[in-house]
Order: sequence, then structure tokens, then C-alpha cells
Amino acid sequence: MNRQEISKQIFSKKSVLCVGLDTDPTKIPAHLMREEDPVFAFNKAIIDATHEFTVAYKINTAFYEAQGLKGWISLEKTLNYIPKNIFTIADAKRGDIGNTSEQYAITFFKTYPFDSVTVAPYMGRDSVQPFLQFEGKWTIVLGVTSNAGSADFQLQPSGDSLLYQRVLKTVADWGHPGNLMFVVGATRKEQLREVRTLLPEHFFLIPGVGAQGGDVDTVCRNTLNDAGGILINVSRNIIFAANDTSFDAQAHDAAKKFQKEMSVFL
Amino acid sequence: MNRQEISKQIFSKKSVLCVGLDTDPTKIPAHLMREEDPVFAFNKAIIDATHEFTVAYKINTAFYEAQGLKGWISLEKTLNYIPKNIFTIADAKRGDIGNTSEQYAITFFKTYPFDSVTVAPYMGRDSVQPFLQFEGKWTIVLGVTSNAGSADFQLQPSGDSLLYQRVLKTVADWGHPGNLMFVVGATRKEQLREVRTLLPEHFFLIPGVGAQGGDVDTVCRNTLNDAGGILINVSRNIIFAANDTSFDAQAHDAAKKFQKEMSVFL
Repeated sequence: MNRQEISKQIFSKKSVLCVGLDTDPTKIPAHLMREEDPVFAFNKAIIDATHEFTVAYKINTAFYEAQGLKGWISLEKTLNYIPKNIFTIADAKRGDIGNTSEQYAITFFKTYPFDSVTVAPYMGRDSVQPFLQFEGKWTIVLGVTSNAGSADFQLQPSGDSLLYQRVLKTVADWGHPGNLMFVVGATRKEQLREVRTLLPEHFFLIPGVGAQGGDVDTVCRNTLNDAGGILINVSRNIIFAANDTSFDAQAHDAAKKFQKEMSVFL
Repeated sequence: MNRQEISKQIFSKKSVLCVGLDTDPTKIPAHLMREEDPVFAFNKAIIDATHEFTVAYKINTAFYEAQGLKGWISLEKTLNYIPKNIFTIADAKRGDIGNTSEQYAITFFKTYPFDSVTVAPYMGRDSVQPFLQFEGKWTIVLGVTSNAGSADFQLQPSGDSLLYQRVLKTVADWGHPGNLMFVVGATRKEQLREVRTLLPEHFFLIPGVGAQGGDVDTVCRNTLNDAGGILINVSRNIIFAANDTSFDAQAHDAAKKFQKEMSVFL
């Protein structure tokens, strides 16, 4: 999916909502556990309930990998079920030396044909480049994350800037705003405007809204651009809005509420 | 496997050799492609041919993940086939926010019961801690890697040190030499002695010997400690020493040659 198609979705749905399918099998409502594939049954219901408000789905691969083969089967069925006009993200945070990163790119661009994958920058250019070489796919590199641990390295001085600023500036040169996005954590609201100034054109994947404390209003005011330019991820506050037979209705209402907050800015 | 057991292996085999099972299906000898599971058939032959010289096997998960379900099946069969007294490493380079890292820890410590997993440090303490909480397991954190891209961030100034030095010093406080190792790339020989001085007790997983240009002599002289304290990984120079029916005999000879070079220091 190209940049124009993502933007078109954003302005037609008046939404920058990305729903995070962090589907922890221990949190699935009890009545779904009778299904042959409870994880897929859950995701299918969530997708049905939320897709009209949603421009992207993010599959957090860890929750599927931990289940072994059956997890990968649920992942594949979920990916196939997502409507084709909605952007898909493999939140896998991979990255290794060149020939190994190429295998990860094959995993998430071909074996499981996502539109994008998240990548960790620590190993530098030759660990990111193999992902960028896939035509029509997106590489989403960690910039500044929304967790407490971001203070340990990302927020430390690196020459005359902070490490995450160096990462954003350096990595931006390896691709372009049509194949490269960055993870920018929304709980660090003081940084949102600064990061947008640094990178006016790139899309940002913004986690941390909801359970982690960020808010839609602050994010939209400080990071929207002419293309839309952001995907705000919400996971737990939507998919686990309720833990009973009303879970999908509650997810629908939660997604609708987020979309409504976003719509005033779009 | 605990520190004492790893050391015992090292001194009884007079080896710090880790064989990297970066099993690229396109590089497997043609005659094995008739097997039901060529990747496992290849790995089994490599393990049979090299285990007497080897104290660890490192499975590079990317090469298996790229094959989808059948790759994970090959991975599991390979893991089960490795002799129980040999240390196993999932070279997966994972790392995410806490609840997600916990799922990755479950993946590689429980679903696939490796002794250890490699972890990227960029997201900080709460991304590493969930791995360290598994009793009897090891977390191997990226310090300085052997690829060209290590210059982009790892070798950049971070306050009064370089980023990788900050990572080593900071992360060392999160665990102890009985549950935490570091990746230290062997192509940066000038750094080996310095890193050993910084962390006298920790085990280092040292890639970069062979195809990437590092050498056993320099590594052993500068990093061995009383416990052994290093695992030198060799992948391509052993497993792809030949591409015909002699591949396992050639792998045997290559592993034996590396072990012999190591034995003079042990």
C-alpha cells in the first residue's frame, strides 16, 4: 500500500486509528475458548467490530509466537481476514546483520505478506537496508518508544543531540517518506512537536495512547501533517474493553470514540 | 544450564566453539532436498559431525521463520536433537515493552526450550528484565556487533563513553554473570580487551570469526577468563564448508580445526 492510499483512507474515514491485535489468549472472553481457534475467532470479531473506524491493524507477533505453530496459524488467518484496503503492520521489532535481516524481511513481506514491519535500529544501516529494498513495503524503525526504558538509552546524549534524535536523523537518510516510518511514543508529549519539526513528511506510528497514558488530542495537535502522517495505535483499550460476550460491541464503541476524537482534526 | 556446567564443557572439550545453524535452505546440498525435511536433515548431519568439538549451538531464527510453519517445525526438531549437555542459543534479537518481551521470553524459554536468547537493548530495562526473570535461563544482550552498521550508533559517543560501552555498563547491572551474557563482535579486535576489562566475569557470545574476518587467536588472547567466559560463533565457515555429499565431513574437519586453535588456550 502506498503513501497516497494510506492518506486517502485517513481522510475518507476521518481516522488515524490503528488497532493493535496484542491478542493474549489468557485474556480472551471465556465463551470464545470453545472455538477451534479462539485467537482467530477473537480477532475476527474485533476486526468486524472496528474496521469502519480503523485505517491500520498491527499484529504484535510476540503473542502469536509464544503459542508456537498454532499461533502462526492464527496470525496468518488474521492477516488474511483484514480488509485489503486497511494497512497491516507486523509489530515484530526485528533487526540483524544483512543476510539475516533479509530473511526477516522475507518472513514479514512474503511468507506473511504484511504491508510493513517494525525494526530495531541498534545494529545500524546494513540491518535496516534489507527491509527497505522491498518495493511497495514499509519499514517502521523504532525512534523513541513509549515505555519507561526509553530513558536508559534513547534519551541519553549522543554527541550534540539525544540518541533517538540521532537515530531519526540518520535513518531518515536510508529511505524516504514513501517507504519508511518511525515509532514515536505518545507518552512523551513534549517530544511530539519536536520530532514532527525534525521530520515534517514521514509517517509516525504512535503507540502509548490509552493504557500507557498518551492522549489523542495532544498527539493530533502536534503531529498531523498534510498526508495525515500518523497512525495512532490503541491495543488494550479497544480489544480488551470488555471480557464477556459484549467484548466486540464494547470494542466497536471504544474504536468509534477514538475515531470521533480524531475526526475533529481531519 | 548454569555457568558452572558451561565452564565444565569448555574445559573438558577444550573448546569455546559455538556452531551457528544459519540454515539457508537455498544453500543445502542438492542430495538432501529429497528428504522430507531438508533443513532438519542438514542440521542433524551437522550436529552429528560437529558436536564433539562444540559447546554451543546457535539457531538463527530468521532462516526458520522465513519458511513459515515448516521452518518452525525444523527449528523444534533441531532443538530437540541437540545433545542435552550442549548450550543452546535462540539468536532471535527480540525486545519490546514489558508485557510483549515476556511473550518473547515464553516463546524461547518455554514453547521452544532454549537455554538462552539474544535480545536488543534499544528499548531499555523493562524490555530486557522479563527475559532475566526466567530461572536457569540466559539473556544475551547485544553490546557491540560485528557488522559495518555497528558504526552508525553503537560506536557513537554517548556522554563520556561510546553507546555500546554505556549499554554494557548499564545492562550489566540488570542481571549478573550467571544469567546475562553479551554479544561482542570479533571483527573489532581493538575492543575485545577493553570490553573484557570492563566486564571481567561475564560470558561473551562472539560472532564475526570466519566469514566476517575475526580470528580465534586474537579473540582468545584478549577475552578468555577463568570460567572460559566466551563462546565463539562460527556459522558459514563450518556448516557451508562444502556444498556436496562431503558437507558433513567437511564441517567436521572445519569444526575440529577451530577447536584445535582454541585448545592451546584452554
